[in-house]
Amino acid sequence: MKMPSEVNIVEVGPRDGLQNIEQFWETEKKVQLIKLLAKSGLKKIEATSFVHPKAVPQFRDARDIIAGVKDLDGVEISALVPNLVGAKNALESGVKELAFVFSISESHNRNNVNKTREESIGELEKILGLRGDFPEMQVRISLSTVFGCPFEGEVRGEETLRYIERVKNLGATTITLSDTVGYGNPKQVRRIIKSCLNQFPSIAFGVHFHNTRGLGLANVLVCLEEGVAIFDSSIGGLGGCPFAPGATGNISTEDLVFMLEGMGIRSGVNIELLFDASQFLKNNLRDIQIASHLFKAGLPRVESYSCRTL
Amino acid sequence: MKMPSEVNIVEVGPRDGLQNIEQFWETEKKVQLIKLLAKSGLKKIEATSFVHPKAVPQFRDARDIIAGVKDLDGVEISALVPNLVGAKNALESGVKELAFVFSISESHNRNNVNKTREESIGELEKILGLRGDFPEMQVRISLSTVFGCPFEGEVRGEETLRYIERVKNLGATTITLSDTVGYGNPKQVRRIIKSCLNQFPSIAFGVHFHNTRGLGLANVLVCLEEGVAIFDSSIGGLGGCPFAPGATGNISTEDLVFMLEGMGIRSGVNIELLFDASQFLKNNLRDIQIASHLFKAGLPRVESYSCRTL
Repeated sequence: MKMPSEVNIVEVGPRDGLQNIEQFWETEKKVQLIKLLAKSGLKKIEATSFVHPKAVPQFRDARDIIAGVKDLDGVEISALVPNLVGAKNALESGVKELAFVFSISESHNRNNVNKTREESIGELEKILGLRGDFPEMQVRISLSTVFGCPFEGEVRGEETLRYIERVKNLGATTITLSDTVGYGNPKQVRRIIKSCLNQFPSIAFGVHFHNTRGLGLANVLVCLEEGVAIFDSSIGGLGGCPFAPGATGNISTEDLVFMLEGMGIRSGVNIELLFDASQFLKNNLRDIQIASHLFKAGLPRVESYSCRTL
Repeated sequence: MKMPSEVNIVEVGPRDGLQNIEQFWETEKKVQLIKLLAKSGLKKIEATSFVHPKAVPQFRDARDIIAGVKDLDGVEISALVPNLVGAKNALESGVKELAFVFSISESHNRNNVNKTREESIGELEKILGLRGDFPEMQVRISLSTVFGCPFEGEVRGEETLRYIERVKNLGATTITLSDTVGYGNPKQVRRIIKSCLNQFPSIAFGVHFHNTRGLGLANVLVCLEEGVAIFDSSIGGLGGCPFAPGATGNISTEDLVFMLEGMGIRSGVNIELLFDASQFLKNNLRDIQIASHLFKAGLPRVESYSCRTL
């Protein structure tokens, strides 16, 4: 077992969690949510998407969100971008880390970002060319539909490896493998992760699971066993791609932290403080059901929820 | 990895799933649910509890339930019993397999079955003495609060091993280790399971997880990796001990089967037919929320949900 002793959680709730909520949520609330998340100890927060406001009206205030959170102490604020325009807007707003998204399956990429995969790669090249103007810029590649596509069904691992090779040759060093619609199972996840880690030892791989069919944390577990140490999750288990039929919530940050800490793997997150963010969501997004099991059930009645040896 | 190629699922929905539902559900519906479960391919079904009707009024019709299902073809019907009286009633009704329940933690045992652990062991001895009158009788031992107790908190692994030794010496060959209130995490589960398997190689161990804090299937996964091949689960993810504060649903049979089949591990269960039972529950238990992620999301849009190799 190559289980890490500590991991980085990328909190994607403010982005993935809010993107398919129709009713516009005031900027001030988005900012307040991000501040509560940061206060709980989360060090990496994907704060919003820089996409066309017609595509995702919820994020028409992306610049204002960033203005409200970019100077938070000790937190790396990132934003999702699907193209050059989004990247420019994000960088000009003060975002340092871009999460550039494209899908391994052609049809989801067209539905999600309205481009062929080749066009997306072209955009990525142009974005990387912005480094001259924005020397602090970092780009994480977020690969969608790695474990299955709502249009094409199964996605071949070879395709994933091929696109990783492509973006690596462009200079990518951090790549997130995403199960956009919750099709992955632990055996499949292990095989794909093993292949990626073996073939690209210089890349820092993260994973992004949805709990659509209940297998999210089991999939996290096999990634931990294989040595992965970067995990996306969403406060309250909110989430779902607006351009992928049947997509539902991400794994919840509360449940992920509970599992990690119980296993003695440090996340840096304080669960009681995290619950303040969950409660804030519950109070302010009344139509949305909080999908975190831990938040609903509460912490166990034990003095410490860390693992006891026999 | 000692991953099994096929597993036995013990469907506990008709027992664990219904026991904390206040409104009495007609016997006919309970019988119909069990028939739908059997039709989906489930071979082991825990049909009811033989407990005092004042303690669990829902099962005041236990004899009638058994009368309705005991002759189902190819299905082993079992019933939970906490004492000698329950065991006699179950056997006289035609039940062949008893699930004798007691808790590793003294305070949960008192709350659940109103006995000290020693008194429970005494009852077990008397139950085993019934074999003369009921030669076909089989007894599975269901150990509660192995992974934590809602009253005492942490439960020491040594206590579990000590009670396994006790019941083994009385002749037990099949033992289920239960996470009654969903406190277990994969690291803890792996340690306890490893100890049990190493120390008692002749015992067939099963496990019973609740998904109270979202870790149910991750806990199943480590048990699979350690070679366990008997898993309790509940249709729709219903469940929860009426005498354990904060207890909520079991892992759902739908999600469990989806994970197993996706990993190429045979369960013998047809998911589409299983959904008939889920839908029956949804139609007939309107106040209860179905907690199966798979049932809510549906199967993936892929031709086969079995694992693809790279």
